[in-house]
Amino acid sequence: MTTPTPAPARADGRAVDELRPVTITRNWLDHAEGSVLVEFGRTRVLCAASFTEGVPRWRKGSGQGWVTAEYAMLPRATNTRGDRESVKGKIGGRTHEISRLIGRSLRAVVDTKQLGENTIVLDCDVLQADGGTRTAAVTGAYVALADAISWARGQGIVKASRQPLTGSVSAISVGVVDGVPVLDLPYVEDVRAETDMNVVVTGDGRFVEVQGTAEGTPFDRAELDALLDLAVGGCARLAALQAEALAR
Amino acid sequence: MTTPTPAPARADGRAVDELRPVTITRNWLDHAEGSVLVEFGRTRVLCAASFTEGVPRWRKGSGQGWVTAEYAMLPRATNTRGDRESVKGKIGGRTHEISRLIGRSLRAVVDTKQLGENTIVLDCDVLQADGGTRTAAVTGAYVALADAISWARGQGIVKASRQPLTGSVSAISVGVVDGVPVLDLPYVEDVRAETDMNVVVTGDGRFVEVQGTAEGTPFDRAELDALLDLAVGGCARLAALQAEALAR
Amino acid sequence: MTTPTPAPARADGRAVDELRPVTITRNWLDHAEGSVLVEFGRTRVLCAASFTEGVPRWRKGSGQGWVTAEYAMLPRATNTRGDRESVKGKIGGRTHEISRLIGRSLRAVVDTKQLGENTIVLDCDVLQADGGTRTAAVTGAYVALADAISWARGQGIVKASRQPLTGSVSAISVGVVDGVPVLDLPYVEDVRAETDMNVVVTGDGRFVEVQGTAEGTPFDRAELDALLDLAVGGCARLAALQAEALAR
Amino acid sequence: MTTPTPAPARADGRAVDELRPVTITRNWLDHAEGSVLVEFGRTRVLCAASFTEGVPRWRKGSGQGWVTAEYAMLPRATNTRGDRESVKGKIGGRTHEISRLIGRSLRAVVDTKQLGENTIVLDCDVLQADGGTRTAAVTGAYVALADAISWARGQGIVKASRQPLTGSVSAISVGVVDGVPVLDLPYVEDVRAETDMNVVVTGDGRFVEVQGTAEGTPFDRAELDALLDLAVGGCARLAALQAEALAR
Amino acid sequence: MTTPTPAPARADGRAVDELRPVTITRNWLDHAEGSVLVEFGRTRVLCAASFTEGVPRWRKGSGQGWVTAEYAMLPRATNTRGDRESVKGKIGGRTHEISRLIGRSLRAVVDTKQLGENTIVLDCDVLQADGGTRTAAVTGAYVALADAISWARGQGIVKASRQPLTGSVSAISVGVVDGVPVLDLPYVEDVRAETDMNVVVTGDGRFVEVQGTAEGTPFDRAELDALLDLAVGGCARLAALQAEALAR
Amino acid sequence: MTTPTPAPARADGRAVDELRPVTITRNWLDHAEGSVLVEFGRTRVLCAASFTEGVPRWRKGSGQGWVTAEYAMLPRATNTRGDRESVKGKIGGRTHEISRLIGRSLRAVVDTKQLGENTIVLDCDVLQADGGTRTAAVTGAYVALADAISWARGQGIVKASRQPLTGSVSAISVGVVDGVPVLDLPYVEDVRAETDMNVVVTGDGRFVEVQGTAEGTPFDRAELDALLDLAVGGCARLAALQAEALAR
Repeated sequence: MTTPTPAPARADGRAVDELRPVTITRNWLDHAEGSVLVEFGRTRVLCAASFTEGVPRWRKGSGQGWVTAEYAMLPRATNTRGDRESVKGKIGGRTHEISRLIGRSLRAVVDTKQLGENTIVLDCDVLQADGGTRTAAVTGAYVALADAISWARGQGIVKASRQPLTGSVSAISVGVVDGVPVLDLPYVEDVRAETDMNVVVTGDGRFVEVQGTAEGTPFDRAELDALLDLAVGGCARLAALQAEALAR
Repeated sequence: MTTPTPAPARADGRAVDELRPVTITRNWLDHAEGSVLVEFGRTRVLCAASFTEGVPRWRKGSGQGWVTAEYAMLPRATNTRGDRESVKGKIGGRTHEISRLIGRSLRAVVDTKQLGENTIVLDCDVLQADGGTRTAAVTGAYVALADAISWARGQGIVKASRQPLTGSVSAISVGVVDGVPVLDLPYVEDVRAETDMNVVVTGDGRFVEVQGTAEGTPFDRAELDALLDLAVGGCARLAALQAEALAR
Repeated sequence: MTTPTPAPARADGRAVDELRPVTITRNWLDHAEGSVLVEFGRTRVLCAASFTEGVPRWRKGSGQGWVTAEYAMLPRATNTRGDRESVKGKIGGRTHEISRLIGRSLRAVVDTKQLGENTIVLDCDVLQADGGTRTAAVTGAYVALADAISWARGQGIVKASRQPLTGSVSAISVGVVDGVPVLDLPYVEDVRAETDMNVVVTGDGRFVEVQGTAEGTPFDRAELDALLDLAVGGCARLAALQAEALAR
Repeated sequence: MTTPTPAPARADGRAVDELRPVTITRNWLDHAEGSVLVEFGRTRVLCAASFTEGVPRWRKGSGQGWVTAEYAMLPRATNTRGDRESVKGKIGGRTHEISRLIGRSLRAVVDTKQLGENTIVLDCDVLQADGGTRTAAVTGAYVALADAISWARGQGIVKASRQPLTGSVSAISVGVVDGVPVLDLPYVEDVRAETDMNVVVTGDGRFVEVQGTAEGTPFDRAELDALLDLAVGGCARLAALQAEALAR
Repeated sequence: MTTPTPAPARADGRAVDELRPVTITRNWLDHAEGSVLVEFGRTRVLCAASFTEGVPRWRKGSGQGWVTAEYAMLPRATNTRGDRESVKGKIGGRTHEISRLIGRSLRAVVDTKQLGENTIVLDCDVLQADGGTRTAAVTGAYVALADAISWARGQGIVKASRQPLTGSVSAISVGVVDGVPVLDLPYVEDVRAETDMNVVVTGDGRFVEVQGTAEGTPFDRAELDALLDLAVGGCARLAALQAEALAR
Repeated sequence: MTTPTPAPARADGRAVDELRPVTITRNWLDHAEGSVLVEFGRTRVLCAASFTEGVPRWRKGSGQGWVTAEYAMLPRATNTRGDRESVKGKIGGRTHEISRLIGRSLRAVVDTKQLGENTIVLDCDVLQADGGTRTAAVTGAYVALADAISWARGQGIVKASRQPLTGSVSAISVGVVDGVPVLDLPYVEDVRAETDMNVVVTGDGRFVEVQGTAEGTPFDRAELDALLDLAVGGCARLAALQAEALAR
């Protein structure tokens, strides 16, 4: 593995361990109990948290709540227009995979007993895509989720003495591009990456998900370790940005 | 029919013939050949125009282009979350109806022979809904369409000597609320309207579509005339706003 | 707008304000609570009214009934065979749009409180199409609906002291063909029409739906007024034919 | 097995080996190359034959034509309304099964080489159902098919020197009701039948399909033989009625 | 019809009335209440019987149970790979038809009153296909069904004093190949058969289903009789093999 | 993290780093170009490799081949019967996710240029599930793939001078159960695991996929390292078993 110093030039001039500019705009929508427009560079994802009383049938009577997510991409989020999944009449594999990832990631920081028999659905719609849409979605959805839970506690739907949130969670992509491990890949780097990994990390630095894929040549343990280090660092900075946004 | 003067108070204080604040933000997306975020009050629609060379199979060899539209609503655009049509596996009747309306409206101001064998798809995604989403979509989509055509002429894909646009088009809703014809109904008025009409008008004041429905009691010719007058006035103002946006 | 006098020859020799031969055959089916085979010239639509006790879930406990419609076309109703929507696995936009139009039109003359918690479904299946299928459907469906309501009152399912019908309703198409506004367009005129309008009118001459579309050049207010005049006249004659059929 | 003489009373007074009144109305539609409204008592099926040049992809270049069928039932053909398969988004097993049966039955009397690379689709839509819809469909579809082939030979699309039809075909239901084998079961007998069989027979008395099912107790060889005898007799009379209809 | 003696050589050397080697392996699965891997030569079908308490909604409160079946083929069961029906998003007509046949066949030997309000689903998945998959499925499914019923009686879910099974059932294919009626056709014979028939017979020799189809030329009564004789003989041998397997 | 020595008792008595009994049966099917029945304990997956000439449209003219996979589970593979995805009309998210994982894993050891414009589809159907179905599928599919490639080289479809395989690949699950990292989890351990990870490793010990999920509490770096160590060891043994099977 090539040592990352001195770092080869990235197209956008970033250091290998540098995030793109991240913005987290709360309350972007008027109706949702929590909503965030999150931007990782040119990637722009609208995350809406819908809080409803009651749970799906299979969970009724359990005393526990449910948190789930649906991810989707607008047809012209990408460089060339994609067909709508509603028009095709079915959800694609990639969409399914990412929706499930977001749901699992958020459930990792929710105590569903404290939530009571209530459901929170996180809709993450990619308005513009430039790499890292799933990681932006997890990062923004956490903030929308936190707002929805605050709303429910404020309304008394969840008693104020209960705190369903057990921590924070964020996600970032890392990858090996031209032999160099880099953080937060935009589309141009993503397509060239030999290895692509999405890592979901809690605010206290533990892993919720590690999903690494060798797109080209398989990777060795040293590369894996370097990627995990980058991801943990990136998520720490995202956690700070989330806390800052929620403090505003 | 009640005479509209003096106007009864509308919830938002507008005069019966007054539009909500309208904003037209061009180039809201980086990838699309034309894109507009259009707002009619709290209604917010993202319109993306995708220009592609070639036409659908049934039009090949005709020398003519094609313009079509797809309308959709994000799940949490509305006050309570709606299920995704992609998850349900089918497009609903309302979605179909509005997509077709937008497509017909835009084709009314496009000379498909001048366009040549090229296709423009207008994606109109409602990010937030507060009444009038289809009329905002037509109004914004026209601007995105104009930008996409300019782009194609600038690129030489459509010869600069050709002008596929034959005029402008906008749309507005009108309705009879508590016996009074009013312009540009937000959701709270829309649900109470006895008659609901969407009117699509060209920049030179002619009709492209007139779709009036008695939700409650049927309406008479005088009411119909009053509604048409309001709509023509409202669309004239929208046409001016479109021209202004395109001039920026 | 060209003055309609002297009228240019129509292919079938009709005057511009003349309906095609209309026949309304009641009780064409043995099982349905109301059924009508309606013919507008060569257009032939089978309308069946199915009366069932109970209402859809979202209306339970409201004390009100529900009236809805489903429109469809047999594959060889048209000149060239169309694929079945059941085989394609989805309902097309046009089918959706027309089903909704028929449902709204009939609900305009039904007092759902008087109907009580009962449902009437109107199935309008086009056996042969030659223009104006949706207007024939509305016109025939009204008669089938009236018969179904009579049946329910006769059975005592709806008390005889209650009359859910508040009036009658019919529909006709009008259009501008070669610059001349004409009534009740067969297919050959329909494809050439610059403007196409479907108008749904109650027996007492008020509007339920006005749906005008500029297929070619947009239309002005004078044309719109001429079309509405034709439609009101045509629907008055249809209302008389409906009354006559119901009196037999 | 009970001997069929003296015959026990059938609800409609028919002898055990007697068909219901059968009518075959040719050219019921204006557009189709062949069309028949066939009635077996109150069962009423509209059969439309659509002739198109060309064959499905998998048969291209074979020099052979293709004949296929699609069966469907209008929602209110039956005593209680059934949901539309187009609305449900999928074709049911029974519909599939019957469509395939009709297609196979007709292909048994067509020499696809003589037909050349042309396709005939038989649409059999049940307008009213009272038992025996599939057998009425086969019987009527044959006449529509014969008319479509005559049309194609008249047009020269199929050379007049070629005769794709190799014979005629019809179908009838037979069943054991209260221990007695009977011919051509209406709905009231069909639901009570212990054994139900549909038999497709050529004009020269040979079998194309034999589909017998024990709905209640399994049947023995003697019952099977009695049912086959009845069916062969019934189909002989249907063949005569088909020939008569085609001779008109 | 050619007399079957002396028998023309079959590709695998069998006599015309000889079954392929049949093996019935019980308890091939660990979880199912009954499971059988049945082999007719190279045809290999896995039959799993799932016993669940309760019945479908339409049967609730009837006191009667329900038995149904689902047939499917693995994509590479056949010589060339077939698309998965799950990927295509719909069940094909052939699959529907066979699933229904298996369900009817098994219900013919079950007294649903004795079963009580319990459901048994028979999943018949073709792991390898070489002709006769539906007949192997019926034959194997019966054994799995018998095991599932024994299990339920052993568990006391069905009282030991009740015996829902009223007999046994098996199925075999017969056909006319090169003019000769033969038993149990492998794929190479099946594709060449002029007539193809599947016969389902109870252990006491009565018919449950007779489904004969002329693939090429229609067949006469003598051929039909010869085929039925072969089938009855084949099923008698299958019944013995089933009994033997259940006795092990 | 608890140190894994001395190992706490596993239900089946295995050491924490011990695989379940693994069997790889080649040529389980007669038709497929490669086929394997792979068993990891009671988990049983049938892997069929279908080799076809040609590639999907989007890859035509590239000179490169394509390898893809489809995973599915028989309805009664599991303890309680699951609905068929073909009946539901859509593929679930889990199925999509696993199919994609298997495809990516195999492509990691195929040089698609050496394969030429040919396609290999790996069908992995779970006949019985007891945890680790996806890892058994990858492991078995590799052997089926190797056989299909040998077949194609033997046939000369791929020149013998070309070797599309660049290495071998296998997969194993690891997880933290009761605080102890263990290898190859059966269902009873899987449902109790706090962390669940599937790791795909090449024959030379490099990573193709690392997919770790915290089902309960998030995991730390030490746990992750312990899991990766176990997985690398397990895959090394699987690679040896694969080589042994291919050598037979």
